[in-house]
Amino acid sequence: MHRVKVRVVEDALDANNTIARANREDFERAGVTVVNLMSAPGSGKTSLLEAVLGPGLGDLRVGVLEGDVQGSLDADRLADLHVDVTQINTDDGFGGECHLDANMVRSALPTVGLEDLDLLVVENVGNLVCPAEFRIGEDARIMVASVAEGDDKPLKYPLMFRTCELVILNKIDLLPHVDFDVDRFLYHLDAVHPGVAHLQTSARTGEGVEAVRAWLAALPSRRALA
Amino acid sequence: MHRVKVRVVEDALDANNTIARANREDFERAGVTVVNLMSAPGSGKTSLLEAVLGPGLGDLRVGVLEGDVQGSLDADRLADLHVDVTQINTDDGFGGECHLDANMVRSALPTVGLEDLDLLVVENVGNLVCPAEFRIGEDARIMVASVAEGDDKPLKYPLMFRTCELVILNKIDLLPHVDFDVDRFLYHLDAVHPGVAHLQTSARTGEGVEAVRAWLAALPSRRALA
Repeated sequence: MHRVKVRVVEDALDANNTIARANREDFERAGVTVVNLMSAPGSGKTSLLEAVLGPGLGDLRVGVLEGDVQGSLDADRLADLHVDVTQINTDDGFGGECHLDANMVRSALPTVGLEDLDLLVVENVGNLVCPAEFRIGEDARIMVASVAEGDDKPLKYPLMFRTCELVILNKIDLLPHVDFDVDRFLYHLDAVHPGVAHLQTSARTGEGVEAVRAWLAALPSRRALA
Repeated sequence: MHRVKVRVVEDALDANNTIARANREDFERAGVTVVNLMSAPGSGKTSLLEAVLGPGLGDLRVGVLEGDVQGSLDADRLADLHVDVTQINTDDGFGGECHLDANMVRSALPTVGLEDLDLLVVENVGNLVCPAEFRIGEDARIMVASVAEGDDKPLKYPLMFRTCELVILNKIDLLPHVDFDVDRFLYHLDAVHPGVAHLQTSARTGEGVEAVRAWLAALPSRRALA
């Protein structure tokens, strides 16, 4: 029984990787750099995107693909800022998928319009487990953690912190009001993903947002050099 | 392809419900009331349990079953308070399950020792999607949301808020420091689950903790009346 289950899951991940490679070829052909933005629910991904993308990102043509179980609250917020947004809802079928997979992203690509973009940010469903298991063909993964979630999170959800290229510690304006030790968080982070790039932000006060903008803006040229 | 996937998922949920019923029969035979405690990562479930269970709960013999992808950080914290804790790790096999299911709980029951308990609190993996889909044979579900996560969460993760008997709004000590409107949260909550019981707490200051203790302590007798 257990072996059957593992095989079903492995087949699903294999199929996902195949579609992720097809996505990747399409992204490369169109010259679009793709970022997979992941976090727990309520860590502030959308507020951060509002702060980061609201003023535009230099010459880059930026689009957002918004993943949610239900509704379009986040997409509506970003559309208000005149960011080009496409919504994916994962509640089709049964109770709702807890992550985006390569096929869901692929289905949305005709609507996204890759030919009009340089950078596509995919905001994943809020979840610290499954999004890490499903590649979507992305160039880079950003993991957002909020200081309200506790400094033990890298140890409790290691795969998530291990499979990303940038970790953003958000809501640092709350540091005086929560029992969160930044040094301990970075120590745990280093234990599960030694040397990973990390930034600290407050989408609310704007602190650190410029560094995220710079990291994102440099991504297409870093990709061209690779 | 999609229909096959839906069928696999439906089969898995069917199998889960069968095992959940077997768990339920065992719980009833042993006279143990079981609570499934669910939330997003970092909403403060463990801190709340420390505050609620630390001083004991009257005459009730209380145990905790701790679900985590990896590690035993939370179980260790509770064991320090001399609460009877059993750990389940879900990272067996592939990247880690994002929820507890009836079978994982069932496997742990011999270690839990139902005959020595009146109340078993099962702390689920931090996740706002999948735990709602998997019954474990529980009498009641408690959903914890932190004010740091935003007041839109009932609309974005409706199944989670719809399938519980009590909603606890935690970390209310942070209200002066975050953009969270309690009335709006309760309005959204009422939209997805009209009339559900709700409490407000701060595990950090102790505010509201006594009301949670009273709710839990009354659960076995409410169950006996049902």
